[in-house]
Amino acid sequence: MPNKTPITVAYGDGIGPEIMAATLRILEAAHAAIAPEVIDVGEKVYLGGNTSGIAAESWASLRRTKVFLKGPITTPQGGGYKSLKVTIRKTLGLFANVRPCVSYAPAVATRHPTMDVVIVRENEEDLYAGIEHRQTDEVFQCLKLITRPGCEKIVRHAFEYARANGPKKITCMTKDNIMKMTDGLFHRVFDEIKVEYPDIATEHQIIDIGTARLATQPERYDVIVTPNLYGDIISDVAAELTGSVGLAPSANIGEHVAMFEAIHGSAPDIAGQGVANPSGLLLSAVMMLVHIRQSEVAARVHNAWLRTLEDGLVTGDLKPSADGRVLGTEAFADAVIARLGQQPRQFKPVRYVDAPTARTTPQPLYTRAQPAQKRMVGVDVFVHAAHATADFLAGRLATLSHQPKPAGFALQMITNRGVKVWPGGFAETFCTDHWRCRFMGIDAAGAPREVRHQDIVHLLDNLVSDGLDFIKTEHLCEFDGVPGYALGQGQ
Amino acid sequence: MPNKTPITVAYGDGIGPEIMAATLRILEAAHAAIAPEVIDVGEKVYLGGNTSGIAAESWASLRRTKVFLKGPITTPQGGGYKSLKVTIRKTLGLFANVRPCVSYAPAVATRHPTMDVVIVRENEEDLYAGIEHRQTDEVFQCLKLITRPGCEKIVRHAFEYARANGPKKITCMTKDNIMKMTDGLFHRVFDEIKVEYPDIATEHQIIDIGTARLATQPERYDVIVTPNLYGDIISDVAAELTGSVGLAPSANIGEHVAMFEAIHGSAPDIAGQGVANPSGLLLSAVMMLVHIRQSEVAARVHNAWLRTLEDGLVTGDLKPSADGRVLGTEAFADAVIARLGQQPRQFKPVRYVDAPTARTTPQPLYTRAQPAQKRMVGVDVFVHAAHATADFLAGRLATLSHQPKPAGFALQMITNRGVKVWPGGFAETFCTDHWRCRFMGIDAAGAPREVRHQDIVHLLDNLVSDGLDFIKTEHLCEFDGVPGYALGQGQ
Repeated sequence: MPNKTPITVAYGDGIGPEIMAATLRILEAAHAAIAPEVIDVGEKVYLGGNTSGIAAESWASLRRTKVFLKGPITTPQGGGYKSLKVTIRKTLGLFANVRPCVSYAPAVATRHPTMDVVIVRENEEDLYAGIEHRQTDEVFQCLKLITRPGCEKIVRHAFEYARANGPKKITCMTKDNIMKMTDGLFHRVFDEIKVEYPDIATEHQIIDIGTARLATQPERYDVIVTPNLYGDIISDVAAELTGSVGLAPSANIGEHVAMFEAIHGSAPDIAGQGVANPSGLLLSAVMMLVHIRQSEVAARVHNAWLRTLEDGLVTGDLKPSADGRVLGTEAFADAVIARLGQQPRQFKPVRYVDAPTARTTPQPLYTRAQPAQKRMVGVDVFVHAAHATADFLAGRLATLSHQPKPAGFALQMITNRGVKVWPGGFAETFCTDHWRCRFMGIDAAGAPREVRHQDIVHLLDNLVSDGLDFIKTEHLCEFDGVPGYALGQGQ
Repeated sequence: MPNKTPITVAYGDGIGPEIMAATLRILEAAHAAIAPEVIDVGEKVYLGGNTSGIAAESWASLRRTKVFLKGPITTPQGGGYKSLKVTIRKTLGLFANVRPCVSYAPAVATRHPTMDVVIVRENEEDLYAGIEHRQTDEVFQCLKLITRPGCEKIVRHAFEYARANGPKKITCMTKDNIMKMTDGLFHRVFDEIKVEYPDIATEHQIIDIGTARLATQPERYDVIVTPNLYGDIISDVAAELTGSVGLAPSANIGEHVAMFEAIHGSAPDIAGQGVANPSGLLLSAVMMLVHIRQSEVAARVHNAWLRTLEDGLVTGDLKPSADGRVLGTEAFADAVIARLGQQPRQFKPVRYVDAPTARTTPQPLYTRAQPAQKRMVGVDVFVHAAHATADFLAGRLATLSHQPKPAGFALQMITNRGVKVWPGGFAETFCTDHWRCRFMGIDAAGAPREVRHQDIVHLLDNLVSDGLDFIKTEHLCEFDGVPGYALGQGQ
């Protein structure tokens, strides 16, 4: 018996204790070399006054073992309780959310009996950075941040996953026809990295068309890699298409720590009755075993589970076959244990190889590049003005761009919700109370020039002198000569 | 014969001329009281050197008739050509994208023969405002803007549409469990306005679960109202589920102008062969007739089209029934014309009432409210720093928050991609070169105080004096005492 790998285990709320007990019993019977450390998280901890649902000593366990098998959690309503999953993901940098969505027909009824898709979702950034501001009476803003390290890590992880697990194709989905800079970066990084994996076919789809195709022809996808929000949506679509979200596992992988959990909730309505299906958590534990490099045990558990399903033995959430039977949680676990060492006959037996980890991956997930030559050339100043017209604002701003302090700017355009309303503009364009005013640096001869931070401070000072309610700024820079800012609609 | 309503018509590219000719012929035969003004848009105009694909005199026609029946357009690849559709939507304020997605089984094969869903998508704002900035070597940003007028207009339009067209339920979809301020506003406006329509049932779903349910059980939805990006995705999902995107119409509605077009493209591969299906454009024209208050003609055309389909007569993109036949574009139009005045026998006959327009809607779509009491209390300053640690940055910023100029701030926290990294913070949190530094106004006694614009200028001046590369600001305000800014993850 090899040394046991310490793992942190949380039984969770609702059906959590039952399905975790069943899962751990199967792992033990399969001779998984694990040493569980049990922590308390979730409802009890929340209601005990800890708004993040996890105590300091539990953090210590996670950081020590670096592997977390997590039962479902009930987050109490109201009272400012924060999602434990999101907290752990963000704090520990779990950048990859990996969601295999597999059909198990005929054991599970589905319109898509042959689907076998893995969604690899970026897990930390995008609109989920949680940076929101109310800017005016009428306008609220959320920042979508897409970063090069975020893209490189998730894309490389997707390719490494595909290489280790056998999929032959990766589809990248973005909306880079609209978001040319942010989603454009994700797509570009995908194109950069794919050349390192010539054995894997690749394609890119716009997310709207991609989601529609996934919804109607999931069989055509192997691995899909995509930013956070899109991944959130399509992983739910894919899970639903398999016919049972109750069977779906997930892994949240970071460079230091990884978390494994079923995607279903704590189902308090059936808690304590011994009828819950442990399969989602069990398959998550299988992903964990691969992660901690016990892939042989992982395959043994997974194949026994497939054989159980094939034999018509299911929990009450599924329909048994004609010669099958509905079992309770523990009896289902017994059935899986009884089949350890057996292979499925209709389903294709699974094989695993030990997961690539950050330590053993030949390519680093991210290496910071040399910085570009950055040159500031202007600034977007956003102004809150409820009863102004674009022409009126432009008149004031044109003067303030160079006096009283000689800031050295010229007003280039004003947009409202991204649409150019000055110069030119159409009467039909509806204007909110939120104006983006673009100032470009000019020299005495009116030619473009580089801008210093001090110039921007002077410009803002000029706006203050006129009593203008500016609410935010965005500096405009070129990086190695390429403008780092989009044009206005109609510009 | 009543006075004819002038409409602007563009035949478009590819199959556009054929399907527009067929459509106009059917409308004429149905005695639609329209006077088409034909404009040139699209490929020819683009390649003639106009990057927006529409000439000044064509704008004049649109603004005069206020109704646009548009054929599909080919946007040339490369060369900075802008999407004509997006330009018209934004410039003319077409805030509502209305997409009926209806199954026509057995004429069209689909897994969802009874679906009849209308997606009402906000069309102007959200991430599609196109405001993107590269902020550091590693970080790109896109602004998601959600506005009260944008929400009120689209939500009210959805309810008016439902009331006029008979649907009994509206589902609102957002991601307000994550984006509590932006998507929270959309959801809140939905809740405010629904009380004015007690005859219509309502529900709200989180977009990931909602999209998954739509993909598997589209029959359970009537009308779905949702922000721009989500609407983009789910309207494609819904169209695909019907079995043929070739039949799907769309309306883009503004307070001044409305545009009607099929959702399919210009299909240059089959252009000029006389085989294209005019149905998507014809059904768009039906929506146009309702809009210009010729609902009786609209119903006559729609019912004749349904009867044609029922009789097994289809174009080559669909499979004819056993006793049916494949027709060319013109023969299909003839078949529809021959059935004008007839009702379908299996499909439910449609009935229309004249559309509510902005002019006749009893409720205005948006009335600006009294401004809130706005009080500035701090500022988020974003800093580009590649080789810094949070603690190092915090040390410098803590001093600069009050000297050399007495700006009157205290550094409250630093986040990286939204995760708090100071004070406290975990070693596992991956940090990019993009730091959000939150400064709150404090008085001499260290108590919170109101902040003036001049204070922010002084703070930035202090950062300049230290050579810090700040890249953007977001002012922090309370509106009627409610903080207009989200807390950091872990704060």
